[in-house]
Amino acid sequence: MGSCMMSSPLLLDEILERAATEFPNVEIVSQMPDKSRHRETYADMAARAKKLAQALTDAGIQLGDRVGTLSWNHFAHLECYFGIPAMGGVCHMINIRLAPEDIAWIINHAEDRILVVDDVLLPLYEKFADQINVEKVVVVNLTGQAVAEPMIDYEAFLDSASQDFVYPDKHEHDACGMCYTSGTTGKPKGVTYSHRSTVLHALTSSLPDCLNLSYNATVLPVVPMFHVNAWGLPYSSTLCGAKQVHPGPHLDAESLLNLYQDEGVTISAGVPTIWMGILNALDKEPERWQLVDNLSMIVGGSAAPESMIRRFDGHGLQLIQAWGMTETSPLGTSGRLKPAVQALDEDARYARRATVGTTVPLVRVRIVDNEGELAPRDGESMGELQIHGPWIAGNYYRLENSEEKFTADGWLRTGDIATIDDDGYIDITDRTKDVIKSGGEWISSVHLENEIMGHPDVAEAAVIAKSDDKWGERPLAAIVAVQGKTIDEAAIRAHLLERMPKWMVPDDYVFIDEIPRTSTGKFSKLALREQLQE
Amino acid sequence: MGSCMMSSPLLLDEILERAATEFPNVEIVSQMPDKSRHRETYADMAARAKKLAQALTDAGIQLGDRVGTLSWNHFAHLECYFGIPAMGGVCHMINIRLAPEDIAWIINHAEDRILVVDDVLLPLYEKFADQINVEKVVVVNLTGQAVAEPMIDYEAFLDSASQDFVYPDKHEHDACGMCYTSGTTGKPKGVTYSHRSTVLHALTSSLPDCLNLSYNATVLPVVPMFHVNAWGLPYSSTLCGAKQVHPGPHLDAESLLNLYQDEGVTISAGVPTIWMGILNALDKEPERWQLVDNLSMIVGGSAAPESMIRRFDGHGLQLIQAWGMTETSPLGTSGRLKPAVQALDEDARYARRATVGTTVPLVRVRIVDNEGELAPRDGESMGELQIHGPWIAGNYYRLENSEEKFTADGWLRTGDIATIDDDGYIDITDRTKDVIKSGGEWISSVHLENEIMGHPDVAEAAVIAKSDDKWGERPLAAIVAVQGKTIDEAAIRAHLLERMPKWMVPDDYVFIDEIPRTSTGKFSKLALREQLQE
Repeated sequence: MGSCMMSSPLLLDEILERAATEFPNVEIVSQMPDKSRHRETYADMAARAKKLAQALTDAGIQLGDRVGTLSWNHFAHLECYFGIPAMGGVCHMINIRLAPEDIAWIINHAEDRILVVDDVLLPLYEKFADQINVEKVVVVNLTGQAVAEPMIDYEAFLDSASQDFVYPDKHEHDACGMCYTSGTTGKPKGVTYSHRSTVLHALTSSLPDCLNLSYNATVLPVVPMFHVNAWGLPYSSTLCGAKQVHPGPHLDAESLLNLYQDEGVTISAGVPTIWMGILNALDKEPERWQLVDNLSMIVGGSAAPESMIRRFDGHGLQLIQAWGMTETSPLGTSGRLKPAVQALDEDARYARRATVGTTVPLVRVRIVDNEGELAPRDGESMGELQIHGPWIAGNYYRLENSEEKFTADGWLRTGDIATIDDDGYIDITDRTKDVIKSGGEWISSVHLENEIMGHPDVAEAAVIAKSDDKWGERPLAAIVAVQGKTIDEAAIRAHLLERMPKWMVPDDYVFIDEIPRTSTGKFSKLALREQLQE
Repeated sequence: MGSCMMSSPLLLDEILERAATEFPNVEIVSQMPDKSRHRETYADMAARAKKLAQALTDAGIQLGDRVGTLSWNHFAHLECYFGIPAMGGVCHMINIRLAPEDIAWIINHAEDRILVVDDVLLPLYEKFADQINVEKVVVVNLTGQAVAEPMIDYEAFLDSASQDFVYPDKHEHDACGMCYTSGTTGKPKGVTYSHRSTVLHALTSSLPDCLNLSYNATVLPVVPMFHVNAWGLPYSSTLCGAKQVHPGPHLDAESLLNLYQDEGVTISAGVPTIWMGILNALDKEPERWQLVDNLSMIVGGSAAPESMIRRFDGHGLQLIQAWGMTETSPLGTSGRLKPAVQALDEDARYARRATVGTTVPLVRVRIVDNEGELAPRDGESMGELQIHGPWIAGNYYRLENSEEKFTADGWLRTGDIATIDDDGYIDITDRTKDVIKSGGEWISSVHLENEIMGHPDVAEAAVIAKSDDKWGERPLAAIVAVQGKTIDEAAIRAHLLERMPKWMVPDDYVFIDEIPRTSTGKFSKLALREQLQE
C-alpha cells in the first residue's frame, strides 16, 4: 500500500536553495594562491552556481553529460559542485595528483565535454592537453592573469548566462558527481554518485555521532575536493549552513593553522600526513595559535596511529577517525566512542579511537573469512570487510568484468581485511591483496609493520608476501633504518618474538633506503614487490 | 544518466537491524502502571518485534493491512512500531484521547484487522467494542491480570510465532504507519507515512540543529506514541541507538522528574501543559531532583510562552520549540539559535526562542498572503504557512474533496497564519480559521489573547471573529477573570490601547467562567462560538 506522502525527490537542488534562503549571509572563505582570502556568502554562491548552470545549458550540455574539474578547494569548485548537477550535468572531480597520462585516460573514459581548470593548474593541463578532446576549457582565474583564448575565463562564462536559470526536472537516481579511484593496480575505475546518494550521505554524515555538522560549525576540508568529494563536506556543510573555509593550494601546517585561528574553524578533515605536519608545528610553537576549544579533526585515507591521537589530546584537539573509499561516497564508519566504551579505562578508549570506528546509519558491514563464512564480531576473527548501503557503489562506470569487486548478493568487497568487536568497532588490519596467507592462517602485514616500526631504530617498514613451497606464503619485511643507525635482522627478530607467535614472525628481511609510495603518499607494495623482484 | 550506486531502499527494517547489531545492550526502560520499571535491550526489542511480525504473518495479515494500537508509551508499543511494518503491515496508532465513537469511526475507516490494546485501556475499548469489527484483539498485559478469551495475551501472541521471521520484500514508498488528525471540525483525517518518509524524518530530526540525537542521549518522549508518532522519537532514538525511557500512563510531574533523575534523561519532548507542571514542581522543590546539566526539553503541540522558556533557563534546563502536525510526520521546524541570532541581545534571543524556529533540512516553507502572493521574509508580513517536503502529506487516506488542504502546485496548507523573519524564524500568529479579517487587514487572535492575558486580573482569554456590516469581521474577546477578581471592559480596553493600534482593539467583550477546550487541551474556538451564539 502506498502512503499519503508527497513526492519530493532527494536532489542537490534542495540543498542549494536551502542555503540561499536559510543561510544567505553565512560565509565561504577561500585562501587564494597569494594567501589573500576570497569571501562570498551562500547567497552569492547559489546565484553564481545557477549562472554556471545556465551557461552550461547555453553551451549545449545535456542531462547526464560530464563536466570535469581540475581544481583546488575554493569557492569556484564549490559552485561547480552545485551548479553542474543543478542543470543535470555530472561534476567529474579529477584527481590532480595522478600522472598526466592517467588524467587524460580518465577524461577520455568519462567523455568530459567541458573542463573547468584553475589557472594555477594550467601547467598540469598542458601536459595532457594534446591527449584529450574537450569542447571548452573554462579557466578559474585565481591569480589575476588574463586567460588566453580559446580558453574562457570562468567569470566571463558565468556572465554569459543567457537568462535566469530554471531547474530542469530530474530524477533522484540521476548521477550528479563522479570520481575515479586511484587504484594502484590497473586503470582507474569511475564511480558516479546520484543526487539521492549524495543527499542521504550529507544528512547522515552530519549526525552528532558522525561528523556533527551544524550552522554553528566552521568547516575546513583539507581533504581535496578532487578526492572522493572532499568526504562530502562541501555538500553536508552547505546542507547545514556551516561556514566553509577552503585552503586553496596551500596545505602546509602554518597556512592551515592561520586559517583555523583567524576563521574560528571547529571541524577540519584530512589524511594523517596533514595532521603529522600540524602536530609538529604545534609541538614547535605551542603558544603561537589560538584555536577553538572544541576543534575536531577528522582523519581518514589511512589509519592514524594511536600515538598521534594521544599527542593531539595533549594540545586539546580531538582527532576522530573515519573510514571510507571512493566507492562509498565515502563515509562508512565514524570513530566516536559509544557510552559503553567511554566507561572503559584510558588505554581501552585509545585502542578504540585507533580503530576506524563504528558504522554510520543506513550502512551495513560484515566480515567474510577466508572460507566465505561470516566472521563473528569478537574483535579477533579476520576477514574481508564488505559493505552495503544507499551511498555505496554496486558497479563501476562503463566497466566490464568488475564482478570480483561485488558479491553475488550485491555487497561491495572493500579489499580491506578487518575485525569487528562486540561494540561494533572495526579494525582494519590489512588489504586483502597484502595479507599473508601462511599455512591456512592469515598474517596481517599492517600488524607486522606496526610492530617492526615500534623498534626504536626503525624509521619505516613494509611487509609483503613471498611465495613459499611449504606454507604457501611467508612474510618478507623491507625495513628502512632511522638515519644514522644500522639494524640487524637478529635484533628485529628478537623484538618481534617478544610480541607475537613465532609463526607470524618473518623469516626474511631486506634493508632498503626508502619504501616506494603511491601518488597519495601510501606505501606502494606493488612497486616494492617489483623492486624486490628485480 | 543513472549512477553506480547500489539499490538500497529506505526501510524501517534497516533501523531495527542496526539497533540489534550496533546497540544490543542499550536499554529501553518502561514505567509500568504500578510505577515499577520494565527493562529490555535493543537486542530483546528487535527479537520480540520480529516475533510479533511473524505472529502477524501467521494470522494472515498481508502487506498494507492495518494493525491498530491503543497503547501508552512503553516497550510493547515500540515493538509494534517496528514489528508491524517489518512484516509489511501498517501500524495505526490510535489517539486514546478522542471520544469513543470517534475511535470506533477511525478503526472502521482504517479497516484495522487486528487491535493491540493495553490492559489498562480495556475500559476505553469496551466503550466502543460493539461499534467495530476486528479479527483479533491482542492485550498487552501490564498489570499481571489474566487476559479473558477470546482476547489474546500479547506475550502468548509473540510466543505463537511459527518460525524465525524473514523480512518480506517491500518498497520504500509502502506505508508503515498511520495517524488520524484530531481535527476540531469534521471527521478525523487519516495520514499514512511511508518507510521512506519515516527513515528520512528520523535522520533529519536527529541532526545537531534539530533534536540532536546520539548514542550518548537518553530520550524520554512524554508526547504519546499515539500522537503523531511521538514526534518520530521512537524511530529516531532507535536509529541513533539512544537509551529510551517511556513513562507509560503516568505523565504527572513527579513521575517524570523521578525518571529524568534516575535514568539520566538528556532529551525529553512534550506539550506546554506538561512543562508547566514540571516547572511548578521544580519551583516548589528546587533541590529535590538532580537532573543532567544539558537536559533539553522539546516543546511542541502549541507555543510555549517566552516566560516559560525564561523560567526553565532559571533551572538550568533548555526549552526548545519545534513545530509540526500530523500531516508533517511531524518535524517541520526546530527552534535553536543560528549564530547570527546568538549574537543579538538577550531579549532578541528570547523572542526568537519563542517562535517555532527555522525549517529543518529537506523541508521548504512559504507564506502566502490573503491575495495569494508570496509574503516577504520580513518578520511582519502575515499569511498562511505552506510546507513541502518528503515527509509531508500530499493527500489524506481515502478522503475525497480534500483539495482545499493542498495547493495546486502540491504544497500542504497548514492552516496556520505566520510570519518569517530574515533569519528564517517562523512565528505562528494564528489559525487561518481564527484570524480576524477586519477591513482588508488581518488581526491575529493569538496576539490579542496574549496581550489580554498580560493584564494581571485576567486568567484566560480567547478572541473570535464577530461578523460586522462595515468591517466584515471584528474581534470579540471572551475573558475569564483571575479567581476572586472582577474586571471591567474599560480597564482591558485601556490596557490594549497602550499596546496596539486602535483598529486592532476589540469593540466587544464578554466575561465568562471558563474557556471551552478540545480533547488535547487547546482552546476550542468552535465550542466558544457555539456557546456565545446561544
